[in-house]
Amino acid sequence: MQGIHLISNGRLTEKELDFVARNMELLDFFHLREKKKTAQEIADLADRLMDTDVPRERIIINDRVDVAHVKRCGGAQLAYHSLTIANVKACFPHLLVGKSVHSLAEALDAEQQGADYLLYGHIFPSNSKRGAEPRGVAALAELTRNVSLPVIAIGGIHTSNVHQVLAAGANGIAIMSGIWDAEDPVKALKHYRDVFDKVEGGVV
Amino acid sequence: MQGIHLISNGRLTEKELDFVARNMELLDFFHLREKKKTAQEIADLADRLMDTDVPRERIIINDRVDVAHVKRCGGAQLAYHSLTIANVKACFPHLLVGKSVHSLAEALDAEQQGADYLLYGHIFPSNSKRGAEPRGVAALAELTRNVSLPVIAIGGIHTSNVHQVLAAGANGIAIMSGIWDAEDPVKALKHYRDVFDKVEGGVV
Repeated sequence: MQGIHLISNGRLTEKELDFVARNMELLDFFHLREKKKTAQEIADLADRLMDTDVPRERIIINDRVDVAHVKRCGGAQLAYHSLTIANVKACFPHLLVGKSVHSLAEALDAEQQGADYLLYGHIFPSNSKRGAEPRGVAALAELTRNVSLPVIAIGGIHTSNVHQVLAAGANGIAIMSGIWDAEDPVKALKHYRDVFDKVEGGVV
Repeated sequence: MQGIHLISNGRLTEKELDFVARNMELLDFFHLREKKKTAQEIADLADRLMDTDVPRERIIINDRVDVAHVKRCGGAQLAYHSLTIANVKACFPHLLVGKSVHSLAEALDAEQQGADYLLYGHIFPSNSKRGAEPRGVAALAELTRNVSLPVIAIGGIHTSNVHQVLAAGANGIAIMSGIWDAEDPVKALKHYRDVFDKVEGGVV
């Protein structure tokens, strides 16, 4: 699960679908996180991505494990309100199961239940979590020291702080507003990719 | 799928859960149709029903095929916004798949896709479909003549019109407000059971 995860913004349009299709070589995973859409709408979005050659194993579906299964996507991302990790791993053993966690205790519980990776945040102040206190990189470092699962950091991650996040032991970064709110999303994504690869490669 | 199907009202409480658990011998199937609840909440409701000895194969889950699968319920009820019947049958072959249809064309399509039964309505004016034109028993009869799947009739079905619905070829009836809005739901359900069994048995 290492790398750059782009999370959809809940109001994915034609334009954004096209952006993902055209730029998948700069991304490692794309998460369809469209909470207000129906199963059929999410399945259609997955179909359209796969029709434009986005590899199905790099598409992660938020919450709707049934959609991930019938569309043979790479995995499902579970939240506190989703089916349990244990249930999903037992009944859909071929799916990668990610769990969204907000504390070390939740991370340890998810690891014990059999999650394949964790999404932890939010790390920095973020537009999508306005008002809530960010966890910070020290808490991220403590978490990565205490779990053996891959940890993807989320929340307020910009090219200027990618090095901090990876130095704290994260295996990947998840981005939302850093791309969707960018004036030039392609340029922004290229910049993320460039910085991520340089830090991972030990250049920075 | 023959018999009496009770559909949850979207705001299932402790009291109603208890009602189902205590009266399952009067019902053939119970549908968890709680559209605003999360996967975890629906799974918890299914667990609680099974904890009170409601047979899992007589529990049908609306839309959330993943919940039906992990909780090993009898089936899943699909609507126009759900995953396709073909996808669900291919990937969850052990689940009974019901489709909610509103016309003969939709019924024929559902049959061709491999549905196990149809839920058709609304037949009579109904509190939950106020304003929309009911389909009527003539259309029900036309539908049952043209499909070979079991058809469960829904919408405004009362003890006074059960005989019309079954005479039109329906294999079962689905009830919502006839129970949930009844002054004495146990008495109402007993009355439905009595009438249904008498009509089916050729007594009436």
